[in-house]
Amino acid sequence: MKVIVFGGDGFCGWPTVLHLSKAGNEVIIVDNLSRRKIDIELECESLTPISPMGSRLAAWKEVTGKTIKFFNMDVSKDYVRVLDLLKDEKPDAIVHFAEQRAAPYSMRSPRDKIYTVDNNLNATHNILCAIVESGLDIHVVHLGTMGVYGYTSHGLKIPEGYLDVKIPVGEKDIDSRILYPANPGSIYHTTKTQDALFFQFYNNNDGLRITDLHQGVVWGTNTPETILDDRLINRFDYDGDYGTVLNRFLMQAAIDYPLTVYGTGGQTRAFIHIQDTVKCIELAISNPPEKGEPVHIYNQVTETHRIRDLAKIVSELTGVKVNPIENPRFEDAENELDVENKQFLSLGLNPTTLTEGLLEEVHEIAQKYKDRCDWDKILPTSKWKV
Amino acid sequence: MKVIVFGGDGFCGWPTVLHLSKAGNEVIIVDNLSRRKIDIELECESLTPISPMGSRLAAWKEVTGKTIKFFNMDVSKDYVRVLDLLKDEKPDAIVHFAEQRAAPYSMRSPRDKIYTVDNNLNATHNILCAIVESGLDIHVVHLGTMGVYGYTSHGLKIPEGYLDVKIPVGEKDIDSRILYPANPGSIYHTTKTQDALFFQFYNNNDGLRITDLHQGVVWGTNTPETILDDRLINRFDYDGDYGTVLNRFLMQAAIDYPLTVYGTGGQTRAFIHIQDTVKCIELAISNPPEKGEPVHIYNQVTETHRIRDLAKIVSELTGVKVNPIENPRFEDAENELDVENKQFLSLGLNPTTLTEGLLEEVHEIAQKYKDRCDWDKILPTSKWKV
Repeated sequence: MKVIVFGGDGFCGWPTVLHLSKAGNEVIIVDNLSRRKIDIELECESLTPISPMGSRLAAWKEVTGKTIKFFNMDVSKDYVRVLDLLKDEKPDAIVHFAEQRAAPYSMRSPRDKIYTVDNNLNATHNILCAIVESGLDIHVVHLGTMGVYGYTSHGLKIPEGYLDVKIPVGEKDIDSRILYPANPGSIYHTTKTQDALFFQFYNNNDGLRITDLHQGVVWGTNTPETILDDRLINRFDYDGDYGTVLNRFLMQAAIDYPLTVYGTGGQTRAFIHIQDTVKCIELAISNPPEKGEPVHIYNQVTETHRIRDLAKIVSELTGVKVNPIENPRFEDAENELDVENKQFLSLGLNPTTLTEGLLEEVHEIAQKYKDRCDWDKILPTSKWKV
Repeated sequence: MKVIVFGGDGFCGWPTVLHLSKAGNEVIIVDNLSRRKIDIELECESLTPISPMGSRLAAWKEVTGKTIKFFNMDVSKDYVRVLDLLKDEKPDAIVHFAEQRAAPYSMRSPRDKIYTVDNNLNATHNILCAIVESGLDIHVVHLGTMGVYGYTSHGLKIPEGYLDVKIPVGEKDIDSRILYPANPGSIYHTTKTQDALFFQFYNNNDGLRITDLHQGVVWGTNTPETILDDRLINRFDYDGDYGTVLNRFLMQAAIDYPLTVYGTGGQTRAFIHIQDTVKCIELAISNPPEKGEPVHIYNQVTETHRIRDLAKIVSELTGVKVNPIENPRFEDAENELDVENKQFLSLGLNPTTLTEGLLEEVHEIAQKYKDRCDWDKILPTSKWKV
């Protein structure tokens, strides 16, 4: 299969590219290297020393003999180049990661809110619009987020994208299946709920085949492909803006920095290991919707944990203390979370769950590269309220 | 009260500006004159000869002694100028019309889809973001559309923005009030459903006070203010992209052009006269939400009609024939529509309904200016499907 990965240089994008290439697909990367440029702006690098794209692709060629093409373009601005690329390459599928993906970064300043909105919404729309104009039947796999559902506790097991409700009309109730009511907690999350409306429209009006993956918080760094060569290593973010919570804790443990739990740590979140992220995307590509089907929506998560429980596990594993700090976010202090994920399980996903062995592995990466850590970047600086 | 009207040069914006000014408010117009520039692009002008902004404002000053300030800026691009304007002027309220407002135009070509998305979403977001950064407590009144609800017949009286549903959880049902599930029928309508998510987020996170008005199809041209001087005349669009259906019919009748009914004409739509539009906006400004209240959502409509019934009324009034043509839109051929509008009625709106007298008035405007009509612009050219 021929697959274009938009955003194929990022934390999820890069290991996805390698996984799909390894599996025998012809993979093309489109990226404007925005995540590397944000590193410059935030004055903070990936803990792991990531190689330039040219070196990454050369290494992959050396190790596997496989060629991956790379186009540096801004999907949100270069509509005509996106269209031309689709017409030239005629891909079977597109994986769309080309969005600013950090909630804290999206709340950091007005400038960053505006960038996130402008980038994410135009990128998604340009891809959909270009597919229609190309006349090609390309399956779009998009990375959404569990955050579109919000985290309000009400005893409901979060379904996969759609919610069955009863609408009272006169004396009786009408059964209706609706897009789960959006309840985004940041500008970043808001753009993902808006993406869902683009998908609904282009699916309805133009019959586009779309799969939207609502992913949990990703942890881990490497996959079987990224460890094949030092130049293939994936990025590892530990800072308050881009670091995902478990990776931040493991990094903090490696340098004996008390774990920064926000508030009571009573927030329950859904998680997935980066190895499962790439497998889920492969499964999604291999199981496209039929023409005429509504948007497929899967929850891309394997387990849920309360943040303070994660901190406890890491603390017990490493001996580092836990340090609750004021929550910079505006969110419920405590919530339950129960998430449906049977679609991926039924497609054959065998979840990689949180075990001490895996935690140890990530901890070792943090240990190995801890001298590259800038301690000033650990505490969160983005606040939800001005 | 001091009010900034973003998009104050357009079909709804201009009469709103005059109405608010007449009522004693200090009114400031912000507009990039995009609607006039689209006229150039479409090679089609308003049937009524509209004056340049400078002449409009000079005429208003002559007739009423009132001064209206005007700033030419692109709200979707000039964030810093928007912010500076808010800080300088400290308005009590903002009326936000600064969006591309025609569904057919938004479906005309990929370029126009992209423009509509980029313009509408960034404009709305820039205004909200600037209010938060300014630290001012400014009430935002936004023009939404009835089209966010979609037009699927299911026997439900369309509520005002929110829908009460029951969510089955285990053995029992949980009552929940949700944003009415979006079902947009064009890119233009999609952007309005996405705006609603911006409002929800900024209301939740930052406590912004927002009123979203889901307006029906507007008809009519003049208000008591726009007839005070020829230079104050409002625009009247009769073309397939920007002409609203009833105004198109009245224009077609004036030149004895068979009425272009799309498909069976079985579509039922909600309507409002331009005189009521401006009154509704005044009512919305005068009745802002309290701090901490959810977004207020009103249906800004006064009556519903089936399109073929409207055609029949105009046909009987004028003797012109009805000419059903292929529907360029992708929509249900026939639908029922029952819409709640009690909020505006309870605030004192006294609806201007469709009567022969009023139809005659608009028909007279069409008669008066019919020599300005370009017959080649009457048939729709934008198609929903490529």
